[in-house]
Amino acid sequence: MSIPSSVVIRDVGPRDGLQPEAPVPVADRVRLVEALVDAGVRHVEVAAFVSPRAVPAMAGAAEVVAAIDRRPEVTYAALVPNVKGAELALAAGVDEITVTVSASATYNERNVRMSIDESVVVIGEVAALAGATRVDAVVSCAFGSPYEPELGPGDAVALGERVSAAGASRVTYADTTGMATPRLVGQLLDAAGAGTTAADLGLHLHDTRGTALLNAWVAIERGVTRFDTAVGGLGGSPFAHGAGGNLATEALVAVLDDAGIATGIDVERLVLAAALVEELVGRPVPSGVAHAGPRTRRTPTSS
Amino acid sequence: MSIPSSVVIRDVGPRDGLQPEAPVPVADRVRLVEALVDAGVRHVEVAAFVSPRAVPAMAGAAEVVAAIDRRPEVTYAALVPNVKGAELALAAGVDEITVTVSASATYNERNVRMSIDESVVVIGEVAALAGATRVDAVVSCAFGSPYEPELGPGDAVALGERVSAAGASRVTYADTTGMATPRLVGQLLDAAGAGTTAADLGLHLHDTRGTALLNAWVAIERGVTRFDTAVGGLGGSPFAHGAGGNLATEALVAVLDDAGIATGIDVERLVLAAALVEELVGRPVPSGVAHAGPRTRRTPTSS
Repeated sequence: MSIPSSVVIRDVGPRDGLQPEAPVPVADRVRLVEALVDAGVRHVEVAAFVSPRAVPAMAGAAEVVAAIDRRPEVTYAALVPNVKGAELALAAGVDEITVTVSASATYNERNVRMSIDESVVVIGEVAALAGATRVDAVVSCAFGSPYEPELGPGDAVALGERVSAAGASRVTYADTTGMATPRLVGQLLDAAGAGTTAADLGLHLHDTRGTALLNAWVAIERGVTRFDTAVGGLGGSPFAHGAGGNLATEALVAVLDDAGIATGIDVERLVLAAALVEELVGRPVPSGVAHAGPRTRRTPTSS
Repeated sequence: MSIPSSVVIRDVGPRDGLQPEAPVPVADRVRLVEALVDAGVRHVEVAAFVSPRAVPAMAGAAEVVAAIDRRPEVTYAALVPNVKGAELALAAGVDEITVTVSASATYNERNVRMSIDESVVVIGEVAALAGATRVDAVVSCAFGSPYEPELGPGDAVALGERVSAAGASRVTYADTTGMATPRLVGQLLDAAGAGTTAADLGLHLHDTRGTALLNAWVAIERGVTRFDTAVGGLGGSPFAHGAGGNLATEALVAVLDDAGIATGIDVERLVLAAALVEELVGRPVPSGVAHAGPRTRRTPTSS
């Protein structure tokens, strides 16, 4: 594979980024979605149709979707944990459903209270229900699990092939706890290349150990063109400054801009969206580019 | 060039890391040096022989050097800004002198109050004075300058060749404000390959925009084997959580361990040294590995 000329970024900030935070009002979550779209983001995970008791920050998912000023060129996705969530998301009119299953049996049990086999069945049911609406199965703990040290990328790819066979439109592999390395990214791509999911796999990388941008770069060099990121790098535990969270959208865009790989996204407008995130969560985001700006910025920031 | 089997890390934490902090007592700076050596670090920048009025955190440089329990397998380096500093460092008995000159005329003027030409002369004088003691010239703003947007890696390499001709034993290129990208790392190595400094250039990378580990990786793939890093990722502006600072030693070691590239350093012991840094500066360090541990750690940390 050769280095791609463009990369598609799905910003998961309004969902994965805000999910562990104190609840942000629906209107502000909509503002964030609009700020991302204004920056040129064409794929946004805007909500999760989950129990508001389990995840208070995601309450009001249907209201978020209803309030967005939808643009035809943008794909608006929502996460669902089960068939009930998929029914609500489809009724709200999302363009894409994301549904997770973990390569780690323990993580899957804790996250959605199902066995992996049960989750595969659910993904099939969600896909049947979704019809023409795309279903992206997100395979979590794809590069390792804190619970089962023996798990590797090959296990994740095998699971990705199972959910594809069950009806998922595409598969995204998630480094849930920031355990990926260049070696393991290579292993996953080698394994996927042997199967049916190689053509359009996505990666969802967390920056727990500061490796997310490096792992994305290594994957891009291998031809991967689909990435989940979160504006500001939000999403991790707030206890360790800069340690957790998703790969920051602006960090990836800045490096891709410099490499001449198109994303369609304006990094300076993304920095404004990251500033909005800081306003909404009430503390600095971990992303460096959000504070320093891209290297091409001539005027030092006063923030 | 092929991927190297080993990499040499110079930990600059006791100097570059602590330099912008409130002063830490000499005995604690010595404890940090010893903690790094205990972790397997074999090259440490331990002090700066600079005006204590200009840089209060570096006061007592000679006392730091004198108090270290020197081991023959370790290289103990100190930064000097001028000939006077070099005299003091040599009298203290350091193994290596680091001396900076900036590719940016404005930065050089602000940092050492000299023109670039004057700094080149000073480096020649320092080298003559140092005799058999190694002099490493650190060329700052090597990947861009916030003051002169037209500067590129070619300018830095041309300056590196000048200071080599003036007597410097080796050259390290510093990304002072975190402006390096994979493209610019490639440009610098291309330029250095055409000259006399290719064989043993070092890189000193700051993580202002979250790119330090990626840039190091790209350089290692091109055969670079010498890196400055700082335990805990200290060294940047404390205003932006996780945004500034040097490449964290433990972040690089963790990724190299996974890739089978030897450093001789025990990452779990480095994490202990990072915890000592947090104790000394009184706040969390930005490094993710310092908090989460390496991916190979089985037991979740309670910190």
